[in-house]
Amino acid sequence: MTAAPDFEQWNATVLVAVERALESWVPADAPAGLGQAMRYAVLDGGKRLRALLVMAAADAVGATACAQGRDAALRAACAVELIHAYSLVHDDMPCMDNDVLRRGKPTVHVAFGEAQAMLAGDAMQALAFEVLTPDDGESAVDAVRQARLCRLLARASGHAGMAGGQAIDLASVGSALNEPALRDMHRRKTGALLRASVQLGAACGDLAESSPAWQALTGYGEAMGLAFQIVDDVLDATQPSDTLGKTAGKDADANKPTYVSLLGLDAARAEAESLLVQAHASLAASGLSEAARAPLALLAERIVHRIH
Amino acid sequence: MTAAPDFEQWNATVLVAVERALESWVPADAPAGLGQAMRYAVLDGGKRLRALLVMAAADAVGATACAQGRDAALRAACAVELIHAYSLVHDDMPCMDNDVLRRGKPTVHVAFGEAQAMLAGDAMQALAFEVLTPDDGESAVDAVRQARLCRLLARASGHAGMAGGQAIDLASVGSALNEPALRDMHRRKTGALLRASVQLGAACGDLAESSPAWQALTGYGEAMGLAFQIVDDVLDATQPSDTLGKTAGKDADANKPTYVSLLGLDAARAEAESLLVQAHASLAASGLSEAARAPLALLAERIVHRIH
Repeated sequence: MTAAPDFEQWNATVLVAVERALESWVPADAPAGLGQAMRYAVLDGGKRLRALLVMAAADAVGATACAQGRDAALRAACAVELIHAYSLVHDDMPCMDNDVLRRGKPTVHVAFGEAQAMLAGDAMQALAFEVLTPDDGESAVDAVRQARLCRLLARASGHAGMAGGQAIDLASVGSALNEPALRDMHRRKTGALLRASVQLGAACGDLAESSPAWQALTGYGEAMGLAFQIVDDVLDATQPSDTLGKTAGKDADANKPTYVSLLGLDAARAEAESLLVQAHASLAASGLSEAARAPLALLAERIVHRIH
Repeated sequence: MTAAPDFEQWNATVLVAVERALESWVPADAPAGLGQAMRYAVLDGGKRLRALLVMAAADAVGATACAQGRDAALRAACAVELIHAYSLVHDDMPCMDNDVLRRGKPTVHVAFGEAQAMLAGDAMQALAFEVLTPDDGESAVDAVRQARLCRLLARASGHAGMAGGQAIDLASVGSALNEPALRDMHRRKTGALLRASVQLGAACGDLAESSPAWQALTGYGEAMGLAFQIVDDVLDATQPSDTLGKTAGKDADANKPTYVSLLGLDAARAEAESLLVQAHASLAASGLSEAARAPLALLAERIVHRIH
């Protein structure tokens, strides 16, 4: 098993590569301040968990052993970060969550105005698909892989995935969502993109979607998608705003159902631990070597045991 | 040359096919009302000019002679209509144009609320890329074509195209944009997607981007993109709201620069006619037969001589 110091180094290397790539792909010169708003929204921000999942999965299936696979994985990692960042920009707007603080900074609509925030989000979504479809001159990523990555990302972010989950979230304010309904909402809202991150990484290699390794990685991604949200709810209920870098307790204040409000704190924590066990079991069943799957295993630990 | 009755029949056939395809691809069952909002925004609506341009260009290059090309063209036509429709939904919102009437109906945020309108627009953008990347089981459109269509659509709708133009538009309120700046804005805001419509259709065939026919069709698309907006400005200044199906005179009221405010009505009309001549010249230089390019020629006439 890869030792923790190796993991930290791997992690740091990925973060630098992703930041550098986003830096080069998110245009500073887009007209009328749009580029600045996009860069503000996506650069320098967040844990890059989705990008790390893409890269860890791509490494696990051996995709990054060749230059084409490395480029594909980096593009997929940046594309999924662009989708995630656009969703936060739109989610923070007054007509949605009306949040003024994100990662310790004023949210995009506070800094740039609502109209620019909406446009920046829209342009970031388009940019995600641009990044996945480079010209022959820009990249060696072949068309089959490009189309497959676009397919996975579009399905995870649209009506059946992230956007659909947000619509359920919107409709759930003040309602009595039961646990299965809450689970369905989060499976779409947060889970779909986290699961897709793992699949995007795996799709940079040559796994067929019917292979046991693909199925196992998908199972891992699903468990982590749900665990992430449960831990989010636990942290929202237990940590102060300055630790989270965003306004704590907002969901409870807005009378939104959460895992904590439905299950209680202890049961929510236990559920997250049980999903971690499931994730490890999926990895063990993947047929990938222990060394190959180590970064995914360590990311799972981090997702469940993080404190912000 | 195709006679006008043939064109009307071609036009009617395309509209039925596009409506039927959108009807099947825009999900009625997306959660929490999201599907209804998406369908309200895109079904039954508009002139479908972009879809007609896609189909006319695909026909012109012979792409629709085979089943794969026909499916690709229909998918591209629906994808571009989804992008156009999402941009209208977001553009109509209070933080942008704050318009309450569109195609004679309440705008999406009036009918469904602002948050749902924003999500519906977001999900429609994702759906456009879903439609372009069908699974093997759904469609015979090959991956090379899928990736190429995604590439064209993403670039036309993002920061360098439509969203960039909207950002300039936003920044231009009350400002003294000169004619080149206004042209640049519209080349992106409206022109990029209209030009891309022609390119998407052409990309359903086997034209290389370096071929004279591709260049000629791109020139045609560019001329029509700009002409469309100039005619829009002329109509906005001369037609009542009930003819337009939207609130007339809004740009002038908002102190936004338009071709009419910059050039005057007569010069704006003359500019549109001159772009029509350019479009016909591009078609004549394409190397395509007169019969093959007839629908594009007739669409150009309609764009410039429409009255709403």
